[in-house]
Amino acid sequence: MRIEKLVRLMRENEFDGALISPGTNLYHLTGLHIHESGERITLLVVNSDGEYQLLAPSLYENTIRDFPVTFWRDGENPYEKLAWILGELELSSGRILVENTMRSDWLINVIKLGNGNFEFYHLNLLMRMLRMRKDPAEIRLMERAAKVADRVFEEILNLEFIGMRERDLALKIELLIRELSNGLSFEPIVASGENGANPHHLPGSRRLRKGDFVIIDYGAKVEGYCSDITRTIALGRPNEKLLEIYEIVKDAQERAYRAVREGALARDVDGAARETIEKAGYGGYFTHRTGHGLGLDVHEEPFIGPDGEVTLREGMTFTIEPGVYVPGLGGVRIEDDVVVKEGRGKRLTKADRELVVL
Amino acid sequence: MRIEKLVRLMRENEFDGALISPGTNLYHLTGLHIHESGERITLLVVNSDGEYQLLAPSLYENTIRDFPVTFWRDGENPYEKLAWILGELELSSGRILVENTMRSDWLINVIKLGNGNFEFYHLNLLMRMLRMRKDPAEIRLMERAAKVADRVFEEILNLEFIGMRERDLALKIELLIRELSNGLSFEPIVASGENGANPHHLPGSRRLRKGDFVIIDYGAKVEGYCSDITRTIALGRPNEKLLEIYEIVKDAQERAYRAVREGALARDVDGAARETIEKAGYGGYFTHRTGHGLGLDVHEEPFIGPDGEVTLREGMTFTIEPGVYVPGLGGVRIEDDVVVKEGRGKRLTKADRELVVL
Repeated sequence: MRIEKLVRLMRENEFDGALISPGTNLYHLTGLHIHESGERITLLVVNSDGEYQLLAPSLYENTIRDFPVTFWRDGENPYEKLAWILGELELSSGRILVENTMRSDWLINVIKLGNGNFEFYHLNLLMRMLRMRKDPAEIRLMERAAKVADRVFEEILNLEFIGMRERDLALKIELLIRELSNGLSFEPIVASGENGANPHHLPGSRRLRKGDFVIIDYGAKVEGYCSDITRTIALGRPNEKLLEIYEIVKDAQERAYRAVREGALARDVDGAARETIEKAGYGGYFTHRTGHGLGLDVHEEPFIGPDGEVTLREGMTFTIEPGVYVPGLGGVRIEDDVVVKEGRGKRLTKADRELVVL
Repeated sequence: MRIEKLVRLMRENEFDGALISPGTNLYHLTGLHIHESGERITLLVVNSDGEYQLLAPSLYENTIRDFPVTFWRDGENPYEKLAWILGELELSSGRILVENTMRSDWLINVIKLGNGNFEFYHLNLLMRMLRMRKDPAEIRLMERAAKVADRVFEEILNLEFIGMRERDLALKIELLIRELSNGLSFEPIVASGENGANPHHLPGSRRLRKGDFVIIDYGAKVEGYCSDITRTIALGRPNEKLLEIYEIVKDAQERAYRAVREGALARDVDGAARETIEKAGYGGYFTHRTGHGLGLDVHEEPFIGPDGEVTLREGMTFTIEPGVYVPGLGGVRIEDDVVVKEGRGKRLTKADRELVVL
């Protein structure tokens, strides 16, 4: 199990314990499907001897099997049981890693249990090392998630766009994704016309019309692993300026893709896209990083930005998604998912990148 | 603004500061719509003099107006800005309230800033006092959310159930809710036949068939406020035992409803339902509390259980949802939303509670 890899890193870095609440790290380490426990504490405790115990509410009694677990019932005080687990694992003081997304009320109660003898650190300091490089089984799942994204794009092109509201299109995309996968990586984004100039636009009630460029950004999950794709399409005869921008962004995306290689830095990939857009005179309109790592989380390391110091290695997976956003006019973004394979980048999403004019 | 009410409570209870991350508490206090900021820190800092300042990522620059705010950009260290805010608000030590759901990585960084001079407490110790009793404007929104739930139930009764999978029905319900409201309170639950015996069942691929009892549990949000309704319907000629159980649960729900009054304890309402089911011989099959508070969160205080010590007051809103779950046979649950009004309970959801046989 991957817990052993974490324990090895804990020893190397002199951490005494780890507290891991439900989320993608817990899933990655244990394979346990524990979705959400709300305010009911659910926590995996690991020590540097490699011993571990899960604390979980009794409503999981029928779900969690073949795993060392202590259940607590409504009405019991779960922190008494947590104190017992900490005692069993000989964790009364020391350097403790904490799942980054864990609720603060749980941490506050742990602080009390520790009587000031714990020092807390971010679990992701170590998890990033375990999760950035995907193994072949993980890459196969990401390929499947990417294939869903491609198939959904084919279906999208059959829709009747004109007159449809952005949010209706977003819902249609959501239903297509759900039909073909285990669900959404994130709520689909549809940004049309001048709304395309806002990279954080949420799909609204604007109706699509002739002449619009439409940015469509979505992703699917397959067994927890995410895809994330963006295509920008044109409805009817497009604006000349946006046509020019489209070709610049496509070129930037291709150059960034070609810059991917084992041993390069994340910022080299960002630089390839950024330089292309700057040379074309749109540098001020490319307002975000070029990409982000992708896996169990839709945003994870390595981040592909101007400050990306991670060295790219075999099995790393991330997006390449340069964009240009011109207020009052609109925007273009083109995004693919990429894996480092045999020393080079390989696209996981393969939908056509030539401008589609409908 | 409601921040002033929080500040008054902070003074009365000798708290020096509060750290409030995005969520329903932040919305309740400020009216700011900040949905999710992921790992990017977004934090309202309040001191006991009533001064406050929001720290937010620059991507909200166009969204947050007329509010004291300090923005930070990607590449900057937001904790330097947070340190500055803490200095401005003279918060270098003392008793600090922390939003219960805040990410632990933020709290760990705050611990470091505080050099051991902060003691942390759960913000909900005070927020529960501010949020349990709804004002008339809040109750109007909850009435609207409840009305959506009722209308969706009418629509549901027009569907062709036989042969449909549980998850298809759940999706249809979701789309109906989205059409009529601002979205879901939670993912709809559909539990059919023997699946109805599991109160935590997730809608799956079981197809609905003649003779099934089907538990349908869903809710809508209107401007942030939730409804939550459950009805159990019968497809074709129902099992005699389940018919008997239905009448017992309906009676328990009605008796609990009549037990609602200003000055009663939450556990009195639970007791009225529980006693009815116990007397009928099904006490062992009623495995959860009778209800939960409802508002901006779909589960909040007051909880209506055997240990519910909250005294019911005008304006409190909660569910009443007794159920009986018999392994191998199926289940029945009937749930309404209730407000304490003019000293008595008043149902917000009004869909028919008589057994519908389709």
